[in-house]
Amino acid sequence: MADDAIDFWFSPGSTYTYLTASRLQKVAAAEGVAFNWRPFSVRTIMREQNNSPFIGKPIKTAYMWRDIERRAARYGLAVNVPAPYPLKELDLAGRVVVLGLAEGWGKSYLEGSYRRWFVDGQEPGLEPNLGASLRDVGQDAEQVVARAGGDDVVETYQAATNEARTLGIFGSPTFVARGELFWGDDRLDDALTWFRHGSLSP
Amino acid sequence: MADDAIDFWFSPGSTYTYLTASRLQKVAAAEGVAFNWRPFSVRTIMREQNNSPFIGKPIKTAYMWRDIERRAARYGLAVNVPAPYPLKELDLAGRVVVLGLAEGWGKSYLEGSYRRWFVDGQEPGLEPNLGASLRDVGQDAEQVVARAGGDDVVETYQAATNEARTLGIFGSPTFVARGELFWGDDRLDDALTWFRHGSLSP
Repeated sequence: MADDAIDFWFSPGSTYTYLTASRLQKVAAAEGVAFNWRPFSVRTIMREQNNSPFIGKPIKTAYMWRDIERRAARYGLAVNVPAPYPLKELDLAGRVVVLGLAEGWGKSYLEGSYRRWFVDGQEPGLEPNLGASLRDVGQDAEQVVARAGGDDVVETYQAATNEARTLGIFGSPTFVARGELFWGDDRLDDALTWFRHGSLSP
Repeated sequence: MADDAIDFWFSPGSTYTYLTASRLQKVAAAEGVAFNWRPFSVRTIMREQNNSPFIGKPIKTAYMWRDIERRAARYGLAVNVPAPYPLKELDLAGRVVVLGLAEGWGKSYLEGSYRRWFVDGQEPGLEPNLGASLRDVGQDAEQVVARAGGDDVVETYQAATNEARTLGIFGSPTFVARGELFWGDDRLDDALTWFRHGSLSP
């Protein structure tokens, strides 16, 4: 937690996080607010808490896709849903983002990998999404996968997941503004208001 | 579904529905939009769909109370959370609302029963909430409980639950505007936009 930025906790395999990851750099610039991008394993925490919002819930899942489709249109984001879900290689996808954020290409990679997932139906963490999204940011898939399996990346990803659990985070995206948790892409405005005023009713 | 109104599907035992039931009459007047108030047994549908958003999930539940507390402050609603949950007499609470809407005192009763629940910590459907909230609208608890157990009320409540299931409703509150479902108090603005424009990006 930092008081000069909002922490953006996320999993690159979360469906609603498409809406956030695809616009957050623009929002940050427009609002003049810094965000710390914090990837973590939301699946680990959801399993621990017996909290599976969509798996085995076809009615709620159908609504989720429609809700994302409507909100993507509002944000001017392309979308072609339902997209593949859940991800087969979620943890690799997460570790690639951890590596990319440390090396400076993570945000652009994430945006590209989400676009291929939600528009072209290609899963993050698998070919052809992985190689193409990495090529777009000047990276080689084989080398990145090797580095993303290194102890430092694995430990960073695990430590972030532990930190998220300690903060009371249970879903993605979650924004932490001045110590307050806001869960969901639809709470980004609330997080910005809280960050500025310490209240939703200033 | 009617094209001249938004359907407001709800359970009087839903926590987030406090935020809606307590302001919807004012919203309807301010926006010049009619709402059909449709109580149903959300618990029946949640059990069928193995969808328990809070029971057995203490971390997510703690967040839910804090989220409601913050949003209630924005709406100028008093709140003293956590309130008792889940309700022991949910179906009685639901049938009383069905009866009250048919007899013309349902909306005011519901608002009072939510206020006693969320401010005074008294469960809807149990004393002292039941009797006091009914007295406020000129009704006698013993007579109302008898009428609310009648076949017509039981069948209306059951039929509404079946209709909600058919529509793909899985939670409370849900708004249906021109055939589109919007789930959650935080989707009321979306439902109003859709009702007027048939889109979220007009």
